Amino acid sequence: MEKRFYSDLRLGILGGGQLGRMLIQAAIDLNVSISILDPAADAPCRPYAHHFTQGNLKDYDTVMAFGETCDVITIEIEHVNTEALEALQAMGKHVYPDPKTVRMIQDKRLQKQFYRDHDLPIADFVLTDSKKDLDPYRHWLPAVHKLGKEGYDGRGVQMLRSEADLEKGFDAPSLLEKLVAFEKEIAFLVSRNPLGEMAVFPPVEMVFHPEHNLVEYLFAPAVLAEQVVKAGETIVKQLAEQLDYVGILAVEMFLLKDNSLLINEIAPRPHNSGHHTIRACRTSQYEQHLRAILGLPLGDVTQHTPAAMVNLLGEAGFSGPVEYEGLNEVLAMPGVYPHFYGKTETRPFRKMGHVTILGNDPESLKQTVTAVKNTLRVISRS
Amino acid sequence: MEKRFYSDLRLGILGGGQLGRMLIQAAIDLNVSISILDPAADAPCRPYAHHFTQGNLKDYDTVMAFGETCDVITIEIEHVNTEALEALQAMGKHVYPDPKTVRMIQDKRLQKQFYRDHDLPIADFVLTDSKKDLDPYRHWLPAVHKLGKEGYDGRGVQMLRSEADLEKGFDAPSLLEKLVAFEKEIAFLVSRNPLGEMAVFPPVEMVFHPEHNLVEYLFAPAVLAEQVVKAGETIVKQLAEQLDYVGILAVEMFLLKDNSLLINEIAPRPHNSGHHTIRACRTSQYEQHLRAILGLPLGDVTQHTPAAMVNLLGEAGFSGPVEYEGLNEVLAMPGVYPHFYGKTETRPFRKMGHVTILGNDPESLKQTVTAVKNTLRVISRS
Repeated sequence: MEKRFYSDLRLGILGGGQLGRMLIQAAIDLNVSISILDPAADAPCRPYAHHFTQGNLKDYDTVMAFGETCDVITIEIEHVNTEALEALQAMGKHVYPDPKTVRMIQDKRLQKQFYRDHDLPIADFVLTDSKKDLDPYRHWLPAVHKLGKEGYDGRGVQMLRSEADLEKGFDAPSLLEKLVAFEKEIAFLVSRNPLGEMAVFPPVEMVFHPEHNLVEYLFAPAVLAEQVVKAGETIVKQLAEQLDYVGILAVEMFLLKDNSLLINEIAPRPHNSGHHTIRACRTSQYEQHLRAILGLPLGDVTQHTPAAMVNLLGEAGFSGPVEYEGLNEVLAMPGVYPHFYGKTETRPFRKMGHVTILGNDPESLKQTVTAVKNTLRVISRS
Repeated sequence: MEKRFYSDLRLGILGGGQLGRMLIQAAIDLNVSISILDPAADAPCRPYAHHFTQGNLKDYDTVMAFGETCDVITIEIEHVNTEALEALQAMGKHVYPDPKTVRMIQDKRLQKQFYRDHDLPIADFVLTDSKKDLDPYRHWLPAVHKLGKEGYDGRGVQMLRSEADLEKGFDAPSLLEKLVAFEKEIAFLVSRNPLGEMAVFPPVEMVFHPEHNLVEYLFAPAVLAEQVVKAGETIVKQLAEQLDYVGILAVEMFLLKDNSLLINEIAPRPHNSGHHTIRACRTSQYEQHLRAILGLPLGDVTQHTPAAMVNLLGEAGFSGPVEYEGLNEVLAMPGVYPHFYGKTETRPFRKMGHVTILGNDPESLKQTVTAVKNTLRVISRS
C-alpha cells in the first residue's frame, strides 16, 4: 500500500539548521513525520524532529544509512554527498531536488556553464584553472574571481579591482566574472511539483547598507516595473523546467539600468530571501517546498501584506550564551515578529534568527526596519 | 538571574491535544521550551514537546510533580486539577490563567453567577439542585437545563421543550436557562497580559447547518454593524478585567434581534473559533496567548484576509486508521489549507483537524466551504 504523508510517510532532511526548523513548523500542519541528519548535536531542528541522526552530510555511508530509513529525501543545505543521494534515488527513494541539480549547483563553474548552454541571462565569464589564466583578462578588471567549489557565505569569492589584485586570485578551478553595474539585487522563489505545475512568489528586493556593502534588509514585493516582474517569472520558470526541478528554488538576480535581468546565484532549497513568506503570503516557502516534494498541488502564493525581513546576527565582539537586548521594545512595535532559531551560543555575525516586519508600504517598512535595527542587539554577557 | 523565554524558561501545558500542538508551533518562533502533561501516550503534542509526561490532568500529585519542573504553567483544556495549580501559584510559579478563574469556569453555575454579579449580559437563569426544582419554572419552557460541572461538547446539556421533558432534567446541581431567540452566534477572542494590556481579534461568526443544528463552519470577520462590534469588544474587555485575566479568552455570544449581545460560554484558552487566526491575522491566537502569559507586549490583531474554518470530523460509521478522501482535490483549491492534528485513529465526529479557507468575501468563502465539505471525507478503510 502506498504511504501517505499524513500517516506513515517519513521525510528525511539533510541538514538540521534554521531552514529545516521552519520546514518542520510547516510540516506539522500536514502531519509529516520528519527525520533530520545534521553534524551538530544541538542542531536547531533537534527538539522538533521525529528522528534525529548526528552525522556528516558529506559522508557517503552516513547519508546512505540515513536515507534508507526515509521515503522522501530533501536538503536544507547544498553541501551534501550527492553520490549517496543518487544511489538512494536508484533504490526508488524520492529525492528532491534531483541530486544531479544539487551537484551542478555545488560547482559554480558547472552552474554558469548550464546557464550559458541554455541561453539564460548571466554576466560574462571565463573558466580559470590557475592564477595565470587570469592574465589574458586584465582588461575585464574590476572583476570577481569565484572558486568553483566550496565557496559559501562570502568565502571563495575574491574581488579583483586592479592588476595588483591578480595575485589574490585562486590557484584552483574557478571562474572570472565581469562586474555588473546593477540598479537592484532582487530574488524570485519558484516552486515546481513532479507534475510540472509551477508557482512564483512576488519578487523580493535586497537593500544594501550605503557604506558596508552588506544586505541590510529585504522587502517584498519588490518595487519593479510590471514587465520586469513578468520577465523574471519567465526566466525562473524556464530555469525550473530546464532543470526538471522539484521543490522550491531561489534565484537571485541583478536588475540592470536597461531593466534587463541577469541571474546571479541560485539555491536549491528554501532561502533567506523567503523568510517573510511565513507571515506575509498565503502559503509560505516552507509549505510550498513540502507540497512540491510530496507531489501535492502547490499553494496560493498571494502576498497579503507588504513585508520586510532583517537577519538577526550576533554582534561583533560577543561570543557565548545569547542575550537579546531591546527585545521587549521591538515586540511592542506593531507588526514586528522575531523568529529565533534556537541557537544558545552567539558568535560574531552568526545567524541567530530573523525579524519579519509587516507594514503597509515600503516607506513605513523602512522606518520600522530602522527602529528594529537601532533597538535589538544580539549579545552575550558572559 | 531571571530566566528568559528564549533560553532557559520552561513552559508547561496541561493537555497535549491539538490546541497544545498549535501552541507549540507558535512557541518555536519564540524558542520557548515546552513541557506537556497529557493522559494519552499518543497525544498530538508529543512529537514536538521538549518534555512529555503521561498522566492524569485531574490528579493533584501528578499536576504538582509536573508543574514543579516548569516556570510558567498554562492549560489547553479546562478540566484540570485547580488545587494543584493554586499550590503551584503559591510556590511562586506563574500560572495563567489564574486557577480561581479556571475553577469558576469549570462550574457553569459559578460562571453564570459571576456574570450576574458583575452586570454582564446573559440569558435569564435559575439554579436547581434536583429535578423537582424545575417545577416552578414550567412557564419558562422551552428552556435549557445544564449540569454545573463536567459538561463537555454537548454532554450535560438537556433541552426541555415541553413539560413531558421535565423528567429528563438533571438530579444534580444544575442551572435552568431561558431559551434565547438569537439572530447569530458569534465569538470574540480577547487577550490580556500581566500589565493589563488588552487586544481583541475581529469577531467570528458561526454558521449553523439549516437542518442539523450543528455549527457547519465559522468565518471572520463576522458581518456585524459597527456598534455591535464595539459593544462586544467592550463586554469582553470588561470581563477580562473583572477576571484579572492573563492569556487568551474566548467568549461566545448571542446576537439578538435588537442588536444586543448576551454572553453564552467562555473558554480560558485558545479556542476552536480562533484557528483561522493562524493564517488570516498578523498574530495568531496561539502566539497571542504565549505573548500574554510570558509577560510580553501583545501582537497586532489585524485580520489581513477574510477566512472561514471547517472542522475536520471523523465521519459517522468509520473507526480505525485514518484516511482522507479527496485531499488532493481540496489542496488544489486556491486558499485552502488543511491542518492535521496527528491523530492516527478516526472515530465518528472526532476532531481530526481543521481546514482554513482564505478568500475575498463571505460569499466566495461560503462557496469554497461547500466545495471542501463536498469533497473531503475523514474515513477508515480497515
